[in-house]
Amino acid sequence: MARHFSETEKQTIKRKLLHEGKVLLEKYGVKKTSVDKIVEKVGIAKGSFYNFYPSKESMVFDIVLDIETEIHKEEMNNLHTFLAEYEFPEAMKHTVLKSLGFMQNEPLLLIVNDPQLIQEIWSKSSEQQKERSTRQNQNRVTDFIQAAGQKGYRLTVPATVFEASLMSFFLIYINQNMVGESGHEALELMMKATFGKIFVKGCIGDIKGEKSFDH
Amino acid sequence: MARHFSETEKQTIKRKLLHEGKVLLEKYGVKKTSVDKIVEKVGIAKGSFYNFYPSKESMVFDIVLDIETEIHKEEMNNLHTFLAEYEFPEAMKHTVLKSLGFMQNEPLLLIVNDPQLIQEIWSKSSEQQKERSTRQNQNRVTDFIQAAGQKGYRLTVPATVFEASLMSFFLIYINQNMVGESGHEALELMMKATFGKIFVKGCIGDIKGEKSFDH
Repeated sequence: MARHFSETEKQTIKRKLLHEGKVLLEKYGVKKTSVDKIVEKVGIAKGSFYNFYPSKESMVFDIVLDIETEIHKEEMNNLHTFLAEYEFPEAMKHTVLKSLGFMQNEPLLLIVNDPQLIQEIWSKSSEQQKERSTRQNQNRVTDFIQAAGQKGYRLTVPATVFEASLMSFFLIYINQNMVGESGHEALELMMKATFGKIFVKGCIGDIKGEKSFDH
Repeated sequence: MARHFSETEKQTIKRKLLHEGKVLLEKYGVKKTSVDKIVEKVGIAKGSFYNFYPSKESMVFDIVLDIETEIHKEEMNNLHTFLAEYEFPEAMKHTVLKSLGFMQNEPLLLIVNDPQLIQEIWSKSSEQQKERSTRQNQNRVTDFIQAAGQKGYRLTVPATVFEASLMSFFLIYINQNMVGESGHEALELMMKATFGKIFVKGCIGDIKGEKSFDH
């Protein structure tokens, strides 16, 4: 039977699960990393694992969400650095390109190319996690829109369209080998053109932030 | 032993192979369609198949190339129709969106999402087929550039970058379910913005057609 842990112990174990889980998942991939392997590495009983996560997939989701949080923090710092040098749409291009570079180096984020796995992770995750994922995506978009507003730029399309364009660029980026050697140049051009259409100089009062998701 | 065929017989058999092969491949997919199934349907001996193609994959390649040829013919007609109503970049957007719709309905073109299969087809195909594929892609791009020139538009980027952007739009299109419900709107915006940057009004004399591939 799984033993009972104190709050401090629980926090320590969860941190270890997320850390060791990430290491194993990156090394062996999601399918070949079993709960057995994870609990062995963390030093807890298999039964204890299920006090923390209903499934391996649910733990994977938490790890992915943590990675996305980290990248987004870094991303907003990068945006502010680029804004010292470029106008908003151009700074966005550089910022997102840099984020895509980070994402490329996170094997766990490439699961997006495996629709079946994504489906599995989604179906085996808690409502809380799904909400966190949706909220994180919306916050990312809202942070960009707010930064635009501070520079006197407004969004010309619904926030969901901007969000979909970010996802599209990610898809192109991770499939660049299919597009050929001019793929990177094409991606830069598409980003420059698209962000130039999405963000135009205009009244800050027009920006409604979160509300844009109502469209 | 495979029997000897006359030129007319050969042509008839090849047509049948391409036709019946396409039907079978679309029904069962590339992996589950065997040479045995194909020759049974066409009514030739298995040995005879190899007089026409070195492998199943090589036949698949010919079928894919034929589909692309057909779509491109239709595409140029569509472009001229749209050009009666729209400026060149906007007409391109409508034309490519329409082509993507056709492509979506050709299950065989979706193999682009299976890098391993593409690799296999490429490695088992003849030099002639590879050349035909490269030539077809270049011709598609050149046809568009020439049509642009006739309307007083010139290309602002190397033709290979334009080609890579077309491939990127295809990738986004066939992965639209990953991008979410605003995916189509985002794709339209990206195409509008990108074609608007790639094609600008300018001197026809600047267009070098095929030469642009030297970049």
